[in-house]
Amino acid sequence: MEYSGEKLSEEKVFKDPVHRYIHVRDRVIWDLIGTKEFQRLRRVKQLGTTYLTFHGAEHSRLSHSLGVYEIVRRIIDDVFEGRPEWNPEERLLSLCAALLHDLGHGPFSHSFEKVFDLDHELFTRKIILGDTEVNAVLTQVGADFPKKVAEVIAKTYSGKLVVSLISSQIDADRMDYLQRDAYFTGVSYGHFDMERIMRVMRPREDQAVIKQSGMHAVEDYIMSRYQMYWQVYFHPVTRSAEVILTKVLHRAKYLYETGYHFEQDPVHFHSLFKGDVTLKDYLKMDEAVMLYYFANWEHEGDEILRDLCSRFMNRRLFKYTEFHPSNEQMNKLIELTKLFKEAGIDPDYYLVVDSSSDLPYDFYRPGEEEERLPIHLLKNNGEIRELSRESEIVEAISGKRRTDHKLYYPADFLRDESTNKNVKQQIRRLLEMAD
Amino acid sequence: MEYSGEKLSEEKVFKDPVHRYIHVRDRVIWDLIGTKEFQRLRRVKQLGTTYLTFHGAEHSRLSHSLGVYEIVRRIIDDVFEGRPEWNPEERLLSLCAALLHDLGHGPFSHSFEKVFDLDHELFTRKIILGDTEVNAVLTQVGADFPKKVAEVIAKTYSGKLVVSLISSQIDADRMDYLQRDAYFTGVSYGHFDMERIMRVMRPREDQAVIKQSGMHAVEDYIMSRYQMYWQVYFHPVTRSAEVILTKVLHRAKYLYETGYHFEQDPVHFHSLFKGDVTLKDYLKMDEAVMLYYFANWEHEGDEILRDLCSRFMNRRLFKYTEFHPSNEQMNKLIELTKLFKEAGIDPDYYLVVDSSSDLPYDFYRPGEEEERLPIHLLKNNGEIRELSRESEIVEAISGKRRTDHKLYYPADFLRDESTNKNVKQQIRRLLEMAD
Amino acid sequence: MEYSGEKLSEEKVFKDPVHRYIHVRDRVIWDLIGTKEFQRLRRVKQLGTTYLTFHGAEHSRLSHSLGVYEIVRRIIDDVFEGRPEWNPEERLLSLCAALLHDLGHGPFSHSFEKVFDLDHELFTRKIILGDTEVNAVLTQVGADFPKKVAEVIAKTYSGKLVVSLISSQIDADRMDYLQRDAYFTGVSYGHFDMERIMRVMRPREDQAVIKQSGMHAVEDYIMSRYQMYWQVYFHPVTRSAEVILTKVLHRAKYLYETGYHFEQDPVHFHSLFKGDVTLKDYLKMDEAVMLYYFANWEHEGDEILRDLCSRFMNRRLFKYTEFHPSNEQMNKLIELTKLFKEAGIDPDYYLVVDSSSDLPYDFYRPGEEEERLPIHLLKNNGEIRELSRESEIVEAISGKRRTDHKLYYPADFLRDESTNKNVKQQIRRLLEMAD
Amino acid sequence: MEYSGEKLSEEKVFKDPVHRYIHVRDRVIWDLIGTKEFQRLRRVKQLGTTYLTFHGAEHSRLSHSLGVYEIVRRIIDDVFEGRPEWNPEERLLSLCAALLHDLGHGPFSHSFEKVFDLDHELFTRKIILGDTEVNAVLTQVGADFPKKVAEVIAKTYSGKLVVSLISSQIDADRMDYLQRDAYFTGVSYGHFDMERIMRVMRPREDQAVIKQSGMHAVEDYIMSRYQMYWQVYFHPVTRSAEVILTKVLHRAKYLYETGYHFEQDPVHFHSLFKGDVTLKDYLKMDEAVMLYYFANWEHEGDEILRDLCSRFMNRRLFKYTEFHPSNEQMNKLIELTKLFKEAGIDPDYYLVVDSSSDLPYDFYRPGEEEERLPIHLLKNNGEIRELSRESEIVEAISGKRRTDHKLYYPADFLRDESTNKNVKQQIRRLLEMAD
Repeated sequence: MEYSGEKLSEEKVFKDPVHRYIHVRDRVIWDLIGTKEFQRLRRVKQLGTTYLTFHGAEHSRLSHSLGVYEIVRRIIDDVFEGRPEWNPEERLLSLCAALLHDLGHGPFSHSFEKVFDLDHELFTRKIILGDTEVNAVLTQVGADFPKKVAEVIAKTYSGKLVVSLISSQIDADRMDYLQRDAYFTGVSYGHFDMERIMRVMRPREDQAVIKQSGMHAVEDYIMSRYQMYWQVYFHPVTRSAEVILTKVLHRAKYLYETGYHFEQDPVHFHSLFKGDVTLKDYLKMDEAVMLYYFANWEHEGDEILRDLCSRFMNRRLFKYTEFHPSNEQMNKLIELTKLFKEAGIDPDYYLVVDSSSDLPYDFYRPGEEEERLPIHLLKNNGEIRELSRESEIVEAISGKRRTDHKLYYPADFLRDESTNKNVKQQIRRLLEMAD
Repeated sequence: MEYSGEKLSEEKVFKDPVHRYIHVRDRVIWDLIGTKEFQRLRRVKQLGTTYLTFHGAEHSRLSHSLGVYEIVRRIIDDVFEGRPEWNPEERLLSLCAALLHDLGHGPFSHSFEKVFDLDHELFTRKIILGDTEVNAVLTQVGADFPKKVAEVIAKTYSGKLVVSLISSQIDADRMDYLQRDAYFTGVSYGHFDMERIMRVMRPREDQAVIKQSGMHAVEDYIMSRYQMYWQVYFHPVTRSAEVILTKVLHRAKYLYETGYHFEQDPVHFHSLFKGDVTLKDYLKMDEAVMLYYFANWEHEGDEILRDLCSRFMNRRLFKYTEFHPSNEQMNKLIELTKLFKEAGIDPDYYLVVDSSSDLPYDFYRPGEEEERLPIHLLKNNGEIRELSRESEIVEAISGKRRTDHKLYYPADFLRDESTNKNVKQQIRRLLEMAD
Repeated sequence: MEYSGEKLSEEKVFKDPVHRYIHVRDRVIWDLIGTKEFQRLRRVKQLGTTYLTFHGAEHSRLSHSLGVYEIVRRIIDDVFEGRPEWNPEERLLSLCAALLHDLGHGPFSHSFEKVFDLDHELFTRKIILGDTEVNAVLTQVGADFPKKVAEVIAKTYSGKLVVSLISSQIDADRMDYLQRDAYFTGVSYGHFDMERIMRVMRPREDQAVIKQSGMHAVEDYIMSRYQMYWQVYFHPVTRSAEVILTKVLHRAKYLYETGYHFEQDPVHFHSLFKGDVTLKDYLKMDEAVMLYYFANWEHEGDEILRDLCSRFMNRRLFKYTEFHPSNEQMNKLIELTKLFKEAGIDPDYYLVVDSSSDLPYDFYRPGEEEERLPIHLLKNNGEIRELSRESEIVEAISGKRRTDHKLYYPADFLRDESTNKNVKQQIRRLLEMAD
Repeated sequence: MEYSGEKLSEEKVFKDPVHRYIHVRDRVIWDLIGTKEFQRLRRVKQLGTTYLTFHGAEHSRLSHSLGVYEIVRRIIDDVFEGRPEWNPEERLLSLCAALLHDLGHGPFSHSFEKVFDLDHELFTRKIILGDTEVNAVLTQVGADFPKKVAEVIAKTYSGKLVVSLISSQIDADRMDYLQRDAYFTGVSYGHFDMERIMRVMRPREDQAVIKQSGMHAVEDYIMSRYQMYWQVYFHPVTRSAEVILTKVLHRAKYLYETGYHFEQDPVHFHSLFKGDVTLKDYLKMDEAVMLYYFANWEHEGDEILRDLCSRFMNRRLFKYTEFHPSNEQMNKLIELTKLFKEAGIDPDYYLVVDSSSDLPYDFYRPGEEEERLPIHLLKNNGEIRELSRESEIVEAISGKRRTDHKLYYPADFLRDESTNKNVKQQIRRLLEMAD
């Protein structure tokens, strides 16, 4: 039998708290799960630093990846199969793309990419196309199969329907992470009726559409997403940990570039610091490695690196205050920057503005960044209409970006009056810190 | 105000998936949570290698510790408070002991302790009494307070009631981990009506007893525990990972002892290998450090270490077969050992018998290992009776130890017929391996 | 001890699927629950005819009443108690009003009130103030206590804070029914984090306000409410049953008024038909009585009554089509009315327009019908702001009434071509009925 | 197309809180659900008087019947279909039997059958075979189809596998009611992993067996069942209501037989009282009718009937005490009987011993009453073994019947000292009533 159609002699089942069971019958999927590049995702947390706010959020990108696979599998096997608009030839391609879509994520992805100017999507592509176990499995299916999988993930694949399953405003990716992140953090948001949404999905040439009768379930999903963004993903404590982590990596990079002698040579970071990271180096990075270094750096000579690492490892985070980028506040920031320097606290590392921004839903705006396929409803008469034209609730929030700015700082330093008492008092007053 | 009675100006709340919220009002508890020794528990998974079987089981000992604290807090504040048998002076002591009871756990505790002949309870004691941030906080309460906390955890404290809250056959420890482990693995066992059990707990001089009306909830708890042992804790795939992990550590130790030159000096392991680990060394060990080394050792010169580490990191586990320690099976094992050697597969590392054993419930048997206080019911007439005398279900299973033996081996090696084809075939036949 | 402060020797506990346990310690509450007027609520379903759409929705107004009581109890005992803005003297009053707020509901309340021109709020008042067991219990607390309870329920009580607990846009009534109705119907809407909302409620002179930090939980609550209205409460199948029920009662009343001879004299309905129902008569009405008569009327001589009762009892409901009150559609309706007559199907009973309308949230509009206190947030600086000024999501939907009209008709009659074939075909065409 | 194979043009879906959705594609099933005999089950509560203990337990036998149907449908469509041991010709038969198995239940079935010496299984058979809408639907499938359905329900059908799906120690009936009753009462027992059990069910000639790997899920199911019996089904408050209900019916029958003149002639009961009930009469009985009469009887002349009805309607139940049928206790009962007479309280109605008894699991004991097929495991080697030989837990409780006796009495009467003060004191002392 051809490898692409090979079935396991007995179905494999993973117990999953979100989807109850994840079912694997395809040999290709089973083999992909067994690759070292996929197993590496166990050592990358799905929500980065969020576990420092919500202690349950220790779940890995591996579990999310299995979840996305399972959702796509159920949509295809339970809903699309047998419908004329669905091409069964694209089943395996869809499943592989779903399973592998996050393969290139680095440890604490957000800060990591930002500081080292990396792009996880690029590395996903490199892992799929490069000299890896994943590539070896995919190539067995067909010589051009890895390329197709990479294209689906990159949204450049010609079959838009397949792309929409993984990347749209209501894709398997989002449906898994909202539910999974809600489950592991324990918040009461993030719930919506995925089973219903899946049951009313219909394949169309350009995308999966939702039958009109499922509109309310979709509204609920959009509201869940909105709540998760502001309650979990943008939680100010998480962002504080993220700010510190970013500053740790900035400092280490700066020290390396300025010839600082590390007590233990940070070999895993060399190519990252230099900006010429290879796939092989990249795959060696995971959160265990990062934490190993941070633990070492708690004992480094450089005071800033040492302090920031200790803060991150032992959860001694920055406090924050609201910050609106008005003239007045910008002037206050300039003043604070000056005072921090006077107080001997380096504002480059200890006075940080961090912004979060989300667009709960948007209709199609060609060319915009983060352009995402909007949701379309299939009416009873066969007509297809963009969601915000049918739902008053969605129309009301559509295209309304919400942004939040906060200013982070080390309250403990500012309360320590053993040095620079006066200037610290001035700072505390400006920050309106309680005593 | 005295430190021991100090309250936070505003209650702190942690979102917890199992108990919904964990409430902290006591300054002492808040300060303990902020110590680096407690935060270290974030880097030690509650269920060790179980995440390789149940991918959701990534939760840390920190989250379990918070859970045990919360259960004890609720029992005391919501049920015991105001009852004459309860001494309110022991509230803070109980909370601290609950929070800190697992403080000494090492990374992948089970294998770690076994290979290096360590005892996490000893290290819990050392952390509480030694030169640590935890000790500094506890000493602020009173000079002998750390000692008392250590005694409660060691079950040597004179107030047996307090001890029973943390260590008995129905203590806060078990009630938290059963529910928490069920939640994160996603299994449908592990549920019981803790709220009901807590509501019917009553303080007595020697222990917390359960009102007769709660007997069925307790039966349910005991059955949950039984199911969790056999469905989750003793899962053969988890044990396979545990076997490999143990062998990794054994091999590394052996190599160190026999003067092997590691490419990267395993400094974190030196004192462990030598058997003279200090508290400071011990506290540096966590699962990030372990995984960092294992990732390095995947590239070591020693073939066995390299192979075992690769198996562990990439989840290429041993297969298993039932093994009953009968004469016949023992002879088979001897035969297999010989054949493994012939096949060039070191049986010391690749042919492993592993046993699991559990006692679902037991009445009091003085002097037995794992002696645990049995559960007592408080009847309506005030009489106190040991549970198995009242519950037919519990009586039926009381004292019945169940044991399970399995033989683990690397199926992939045995299927590789490029070398020693004949002897491998013989082995496969003996192991009744499917082809 | 005074009756108002009397506690039960042992707390009584009801198991409740929504709130886990309902706790009763106050003798007054226990006695009220035991009155026959309160127990009568067991025979009035919370959701009227909804059980014909969602078969799980068999729950009674008694269980909802207990739930509202429990929510108010928790708000007062766990959150308000001890705060200076809260007057502990109003605790029992609040609990009684919560427990009794729905006491006057009749069987299938909605249709019942409409056809017989009754008002359940008036009967709630009559039961509380009249010659009833409830009144006897309340009078024991104090001579003017029944009056105060009735005032709280009627929203005329001077203590606006107490009123707001029972009647506002985020009161205990709504919080219970949304969750309860979601639970029993089994829909996945209706969930929100009530525990969080309760924890951030604060007593103020005029109403209970919500701390700013709970805004997202409130947004979630408002969205849940919106979804429940359109997914459950206004479900077209439920409305179809409601339409039939209304027509049954109309027909019976009409027959009575026109001197029709019922085979069994409808004694329970006499005073209702005549419009002079006494409290005693009213209290005899419940859904068992209604169903008893409907079952009898399935065998009445009058064809319309017989048919409508049979439809209701055996769930043979009307079909429906969208209906927009445009000129064109109004003309169609006139045309249909004419055709129905021609076809021998009385349009007064068999061609019914039914409208549903909801306002998801509204800021204060004095004098409007259904005027309900809007939700106010308590900001960190102590300022109080109306919700829609702080929440973009709520602002977006605030004041936007949504209305839906449907036209109901008996599809089976219209498909029966044994008589009036041509005119029925015409009707079917106008109704765009599928064949 | 033949009626038996006819599919609905669009699948019908019922929202169900226990199974999420109940799916109907078969025209026959849809038509059966629409019959008046099936819809009558809406007016018979699944748990009889249990709603007086657990106020959520208002769910009807209709919802249970849909649930049993859905479980059998999933087992057949998702697990059995395509396996050689399964005969697809028996699919519709199995579904119909599942849906209709409880069709003959009367109102408050338990007491109803006991007092009037009826058997709901007989009436199920009569409804299926008699002149009913159900029979008309089934006959459309085939002339002998009604008979076959009745045989499956009566366990006399030759295809034992089909019978075992509906009636064995792990059938769809039990799996539905345990979960459903747990859900609606809100207790935390009654949960087990049905999805897992279904997935490991395998068709064999004589019965559905369970793969060995599902043994623990089955153990959990058996324990759930045990807990539900003692926590819910045999709850002493429920039994108290049952005792009163039985006595109401006994009294009414006695009055009828002794020529008492009822103010309103109890026409619905005539044939029941006389013992010659027809199918037509039987189908007119439901809980609305019963409650209608009880409400009337609250105003009857006969004091005992009046009092008992009032107790039932307004939940003024009997109290109870433990009762062991020892010589001593039997003598006490005789003494009490005498004293009740002296006190003017008729012991025939007011002093009642009620016994409950359950066998949690049993292996096969031919000829025993309640003989139920034991559970069989399918081992990996193909061998089939009875469960208690494999499971130590089940072995421990197998065949152990547990019985509980209680003595019920009206505490309010005995506390009323306006008459017969001395003898009532004596009674209270004997009953060890608290004052």
